[in-house]
Amino acid sequence: MTPDPITKGVLAGDPRAIARAISLVEDEQPAGVDVLRAVYPHTGRAYVVGITGPPGAGKSTLVDRLATEVRRDGKKVGVIAVDPTSPFTGGALLGDRVRMGGHSADAGVFIRSMATRGHLGGLARATGDVALILDAAGYEVIIIETIGVGQDEVDIVRTADISIVMLVPGTGDEVQALKAGIMEIADIFVVNKADREGADRLVESVTANLTLQTFAPGEWRPPVLKTVATGGEGVAELWARIGAFRAHSDDVGRVPLGNGARTRRERRQRERHEYRLRDLLSHRFLRHVEQSLGPGELERLVEQVASRQTDPYSAVTALLQRVMNTQA
Amino acid sequence: MTPDPITKGVLAGDPRAIARAISLVEDEQPAGVDVLRAVYPHTGRAYVVGITGPPGAGKSTLVDRLATEVRRDGKKVGVIAVDPTSPFTGGALLGDRVRMGGHSADAGVFIRSMATRGHLGGLARATGDVALILDAAGYEVIIIETIGVGQDEVDIVRTADISIVMLVPGTGDEVQALKAGIMEIADIFVVNKADREGADRLVESVTANLTLQTFAPGEWRPPVLKTVATGGEGVAELWARIGAFRAHSDDVGRVPLGNGARTRRERRQRERHEYRLRDLLSHRFLRHVEQSLGPGELERLVEQVASRQTDPYSAVTALLQRVMNTQA
Repeated sequence: MTPDPITKGVLAGDPRAIARAISLVEDEQPAGVDVLRAVYPHTGRAYVVGITGPPGAGKSTLVDRLATEVRRDGKKVGVIAVDPTSPFTGGALLGDRVRMGGHSADAGVFIRSMATRGHLGGLARATGDVALILDAAGYEVIIIETIGVGQDEVDIVRTADISIVMLVPGTGDEVQALKAGIMEIADIFVVNKADREGADRLVESVTANLTLQTFAPGEWRPPVLKTVATGGEGVAELWARIGAFRAHSDDVGRVPLGNGARTRRERRQRERHEYRLRDLLSHRFLRHVEQSLGPGELERLVEQVASRQTDPYSAVTALLQRVMNTQA
Repeated sequence: MTPDPITKGVLAGDPRAIARAISLVEDEQPAGVDVLRAVYPHTGRAYVVGITGPPGAGKSTLVDRLATEVRRDGKKVGVIAVDPTSPFTGGALLGDRVRMGGHSADAGVFIRSMATRGHLGGLARATGDVALILDAAGYEVIIIETIGVGQDEVDIVRTADISIVMLVPGTGDEVQALKAGIMEIADIFVVNKADREGADRLVESVTANLTLQTFAPGEWRPPVLKTVATGGEGVAELWARIGAFRAHSDDVGRVPLGNGARTRRERRQRERHEYRLRDLLSHRFLRHVEQSLGPGELERLVEQVASRQTDPYSAVTALLQRVMNTQA
């Protein structure tokens, strides 16, 4: 397939073309960028749901149930399961087939797992690009699930249209999450495995923490929901609350939002675009540096640093000054 | 403290100065770079041991026991415990005090835990900088422990002087690790919790996998060791094998090594330097872009991308071309 039929296929929602486009993007093929450029004007319609939580919180089960709710609403749903702890925690490599489960016969559901390794271009960038492809292909809701590890993964969730933080009773994770500031990104809290001992205590402690925060009039106050994802309990309620948050953030705010956005959702989208621009910029610059260096030049620099003739900080300053005077 | 006394303190091995220098580096203070530049000529003496393994493999216990072995050899040891899955798996935030355990009264041991969040400059860069400070402070062995997650973490371990991959029986992790290519980075395999059922089977399967590989004459063949870190079993053997690998890689190779290195260890060190130069370069470039953009300029670009007047790929190309013509 040449890029053009792939682009057409993506825009027509053809799963084979979508899978092919995703592979091109993941492998950093120039044809992948061509597809992204071509489909980009057709993006911006999908609602992006970010879900994060500790390993073992039941993320994939919850996302599976949530996808069912989205389908009941008559909407197409794309799922991007990001597992940066692969290979060690296993998730992503188990493959999409397992994940598809009951959705495998449903063309309205597209599930893609992504592991860190093998992503030449960085996981966050790949995730963003895959979301654009699914968006262009007409998936109206895109769920991105990830464990809340590195800054990149947190940013993926934080800049989604809505950020959901999952917790489970009895792990003590909420204390750690509180300390590390991950609670601050939540638009909705979900206490999963809510039939376990300690669930109510966990709900109370998260709620108590929220009462310590001040909310401006009209500001969204994150609800704390209970789910038992394996049995589907609480999932319809979660989907309803996602809808409520969406309506809230599509509202034209009365307070100035600061970056030219008219609504809270627009502000979030702008953050997402800015994050991606920075990421892409740094990636492209490194590629440019590699191309503009003479043969053996980087090697000589490494040799000088290794032999302590210079230090890495001075070496990079000199290199930066030189490269900046060449044409991009 | 001004940078100069800090540098002096670091070179004298003063723990307070070391801790202060690390904080400056972690917070990306300009004084931190001053310290790094000043101590850099005094680095390159430490032997860097990278250890990776799945959550629950008993890494911190093994590292603790290994530190005891290093001390028995009369060498000072620095430990950098990297936990990029914090906050959710907890490790790093539990703090260094817990980790210090039996070493707390021993000035020959320095332990520093690092979590992702709060590292403005990226975890890999921070880890490398902390290692340089410990190296300059006279720690002869530096152990960097991390779970094998993102590419950055794998690179930290891969470019250490020796890379140790830990596995535990009964988790199925070895299959995942095999698939994802993490086994390829091991100079030594450690099957920890070797008193558990399935340990021998795991050793056999890793050994069988190694027999499928071809090793050149004189090439190091990764041993598969069994340990029970909680009881200290197998740890002296591990330390002995680390010594054997060190001797092997300090040997002047008979095969050309490709990047100007005379020994395998030098080759590894060059890879580490190259990795760090790239990372530092990209970080500095982004800072330069931010400084060279006019007020509101990035915001306008984001707005154009958000409104689909342009796509991110074209926007970045244009931005890159413009920034490259300004002085670094």
